[in-house]
Amino acid sequence: MKLLRYGPAGQEKPGVLDEQGQVRDLSDHVRDFAGDGVSLEALNTLRALDLSQLPLVAEPGRIGACLASVPNFYCIGLNYAKHAAETGMAEPAEPIVFNKATSALSGPNDPVIIPRGAEKADWEVELGVVIGKEALYVSEADALDHVAGYCVINDMSERSFQIERGGQWVKGKSAPTFGPTGPWLVTADEVLDPQNLRVSLMLNGETVQDETTDDMIFTVAQIISHMSQFMKLVPGDIIATGTPSGVGMGMKPQRFLKPGDVMELTIDGLGTQRQETVAAE
Amino acid sequence: MKLLRYGPAGQEKPGVLDEQGQVRDLSDHVRDFAGDGVSLEALNTLRALDLSQLPLVAEPGRIGACLASVPNFYCIGLNYAKHAAETGMAEPAEPIVFNKATSALSGPNDPVIIPRGAEKADWEVELGVVIGKEALYVSEADALDHVAGYCVINDMSERSFQIERGGQWVKGKSAPTFGPTGPWLVTADEVLDPQNLRVSLMLNGETVQDETTDDMIFTVAQIISHMSQFMKLVPGDIIATGTPSGVGMGMKPQRFLKPGDVMELTIDGLGTQRQETVAAE
Repeated sequence: MKLLRYGPAGQEKPGVLDEQGQVRDLSDHVRDFAGDGVSLEALNTLRALDLSQLPLVAEPGRIGACLASVPNFYCIGLNYAKHAAETGMAEPAEPIVFNKATSALSGPNDPVIIPRGAEKADWEVELGVVIGKEALYVSEADALDHVAGYCVINDMSERSFQIERGGQWVKGKSAPTFGPTGPWLVTADEVLDPQNLRVSLMLNGETVQDETTDDMIFTVAQIISHMSQFMKLVPGDIIATGTPSGVGMGMKPQRFLKPGDVMELTIDGLGTQRQETVAAE
Repeated sequence: MKLLRYGPAGQEKPGVLDEQGQVRDLSDHVRDFAGDGVSLEALNTLRALDLSQLPLVAEPGRIGACLASVPNFYCIGLNYAKHAAETGMAEPAEPIVFNKATSALSGPNDPVIIPRGAEKADWEVELGVVIGKEALYVSEADALDHVAGYCVINDMSERSFQIERGGQWVKGKSAPTFGPTGPWLVTADEVLDPQNLRVSLMLNGETVQDETTDDMIFTVAQIISHMSQFMKLVPGDIIATGTPSGVGMGMKPQRFLKPGDVMELTIDGLGTQRQETVAAE
């Protein structure tokens, strides 16, 4: 299933794409795609529905983030070898885990707001993994059984806030709109191999990031298993699994976002995002 | 008001202490102390109630964390000078912000589970600040207007997970039960000066931490204003504002928690927590 949330910001309704690619309303069947609303049990209930019998949404309008009320918005750092190299940082011995404020979440096509004082706003296309079942001390072999689905994420970053403001990265990852997520939460059954997806980002029409998830240093299963040794992952948690090479801080000379820039992010089977950047008021 | 959540884990109900210190049930007036349930508006509605007319809870039983469904569990690092010194780390030039997994939240008297593989589990009594109104780009002068209330937090830490596993601290702060919070959310009107509260922790009956919040490097107002330059704080967010000196990693020789240890944490006017440590299964 391709699940989505449509409508004005803060008033989104849950929906699903039918076989013709039309939006069908799911409001009568799930309160929202939040927490237990994306548990494996909840998704199985939706899977049993006859989509053609659900109300057709002729004009869905804006597409929101495909998740709401996210319990934790985790990210993995430096998870593609060429990206680690371009940042000048060492390739990690184990997954680097950090957080994005959950208030950074935004729709896949909403404008990205460059925060006040930002001079190094940067893009990062990433495969997002959404947890569907509690995970604590799970093995790598069992890890993917805890996945509800996958989505596209732009792990927007402000490099000076991230690196030069105390060593912990959350300050550089958390401004409002720094987490475009969606358009769809694609359930795990539709993603045959999460390590064989092409991940790309175009800036103003020019392809700047383009690798496959096969280039990840740590696989999705390894990340989930590893994280679950330190914390309990819960339904609705997002893990952004790291970005390929081609970010602005890795370019020579470095290149950062200015108002009016346009980012287009695509992952095989998970859809496309498009954001224009604007300055904070 | 002293707000609390009582009942078995996962089934807590919202309540309030009346003038006699008895628990009164608030289930008819607030769904839960979560997100907008602790907005300043929601708290004003509760403040208008006649507590003596609310159902008396004769046997409240277990006290849960005083908040649920926390959007973000933020922590401030090295915010007391003597603590920074004891860790061997430099005194920060600005607040160090990191996250705890929200799934670490637990009741003030629940056992603290020492996670598998942990050899350096450590205590940290902290003043917790709960946000009651969105905060983005707020001044230091206006910052406290965004506070719903205060509570006691044990920012439990595993030092090798925190420091030796990739540089970002979340792995060492996030095990289940690593976030005892409460017993009460004390509304801001009852805390005359958040920078004049005594903060202490006893380990097996011996006082090991004992300072006042006057010793903070960055005040609560400075922390909120600073964070709001990087992220939007939202109702229900917790900020643990750093711990005084006297943690186990600062002792000579270092001392870490073993199953059966008992921690008792107290902050003036905010109540007391008591946890016994147990090994993870």
